[in-house]
Amino acid sequence: MKIVRNPFAWLLLFVLLLPAWPAQAEGLQAKRALAQPALVQIGVIDALLAGGYEGSVPVRQLPGLGDIGLGTFDALDGEMVVLDGVVYQVPASGLVRRADPGVTTPFAQVARFRPGPALALPEGLGLKALEAWLDKALGDTSLFCAARVDGVFATLKARSVPRQSKPYRPLAEVAKEQSVFEFSQQRGTLVGLRGPDYVRGLGVPGWHWHFLTQDRRRGGHVLDLTLGSGAARLATLRRLELLLPEGGLGGLDLARDRQGELKAVESAR
Amino acid sequence: MKIVRNPFAWLLLFVLLLPAWPAQAEGLQAKRALAQPALVQIGVIDALLAGGYEGSVPVRQLPGLGDIGLGTFDALDGEMVVLDGVVYQVPASGLVRRADPGVTTPFAQVARFRPGPALALPEGLGLKALEAWLDKALGDTSLFCAARVDGVFATLKARSVPRQSKPYRPLAEVAKEQSVFEFSQQRGTLVGLRGPDYVRGLGVPGWHWHFLTQDRRRGGHVLDLTLGSGAARLATLRRLELLLPEGGLGGLDLARDRQGELKAVESAR
Repeated sequence: MKIVRNPFAWLLLFVLLLPAWPAQAEGLQAKRALAQPALVQIGVIDALLAGGYEGSVPVRQLPGLGDIGLGTFDALDGEMVVLDGVVYQVPASGLVRRADPGVTTPFAQVARFRPGPALALPEGLGLKALEAWLDKALGDTSLFCAARVDGVFATLKARSVPRQSKPYRPLAEVAKEQSVFEFSQQRGTLVGLRGPDYVRGLGVPGWHWHFLTQDRRRGGHVLDLTLGSGAARLATLRRLELLLPEGGLGGLDLARDRQGELKAVESAR
Repeated sequence: MKIVRNPFAWLLLFVLLLPAWPAQAEGLQAKRALAQPALVQIGVIDALLAGGYEGSVPVRQLPGLGDIGLGTFDALDGEMVVLDGVVYQVPASGLVRRADPGVTTPFAQVARFRPGPALALPEGLGLKALEAWLDKALGDTSLFCAARVDGVFATLKARSVPRQSKPYRPLAEVAKEQSVFEFSQQRGTLVGLRGPDYVRGLGVPGWHWHFLTQDRRRGGHVLDLTLGSGAARLATLRRLELLLPEGGLGGLDLARDRQGELKAVESAR
């Protein structure tokens, strides 16, 4: 047969079968474990709280790591929302733009979103009630979770933070100068990530929400809300990938427990 | 030309060039960021401290994830030392064996060890002085680090813990029943991992050492030592890969701050 005699056919077969090479089987099995969907995190929250606003990873790399997520930008230049693979920037003006791909981020969390079926939410839920409802739907809150809530928000209060210049002050101080945006009867999307309790210091324990209006032109970090109607989609993640800046986080005070500061910054009204 | 007309040659060229496909360039760049050497961690320390001794990942997968590391086994059946790609088990008897590949681990940390040059250590260092010396050699302690110290230990005190049965008690309680092994003028190898301060709850902040004698027949979790002579090799890691069990960590009390318990367990004499 012509094919069997063709050396290129054999070479092609060899190249195609290479990944199944028996000696690689253990490594592949291990790699499969690492191929679980992950929450990919750039930087650590304690460094951000300490004023580590220097970006390390260009925003253009984020869509390669996940299509949903939250974060901020170099020099704390606004809130980041990653939705449907697009990186949006909500600066202190509140006027949302697509982030410049060359801008870097000191802190971002993204995931490849493979949610379960949409869950219709009860109407009228406040922020805490919404979070409790989602926790109950999750059942187990010992893993990470990415969530998306599309709906109409009877009320919603969001904020963003103004771009900083050096020397950088701690986030708890800067957050006092936040801009607050109020929405009512607003159609839009919440992007949420949930960290388990044990990520204290490294990530954000509990839920953390950013918002975009349906036209993707307004939004921010969510301080409060009352749900009109909406549906949630949840994806549990049992893997975390943490990437730290090449130069380390040197010069920042990382020894202190900053859980109180985090709470203040997350919910300051 | 014969080659140019051969369809298999073209197909082969296509398969070989596929990874360079321009549309994949961004994804590849992002993947390169994730290809940094990582500390791969199975489970979280707060779950182990809470008595979560149920193994999730078979030991046979560890060498695919790293060649140096620390951990324990299903049912807390001794201390784990991963050295040169071999998974050693130090049961409460102190008699080291190669771990059964089918045994699982509830908590392990491994890395692919690519250290810098060997650093000759001053003689006579105690454990704390050794750690301070290594921290100074590292310069920046805001990243993760894997270390190996080969040498002669004037004195060394190591421990292991007895296999537990259900219902599992918290680690701080179980550690009181540890076996302690004392060595003097012993040639051997320390395997150490260092976590930054912000891994509280998730991993182990600061240094954590396990020991194997040169013949790999004795060892344990290091409680104390005085160095005779030796050399250290260090590898900084700026990536963490955390894998959580498929079923989550449900049923364990993960809300509590267990830093005090961790300190007690790590250094109990």
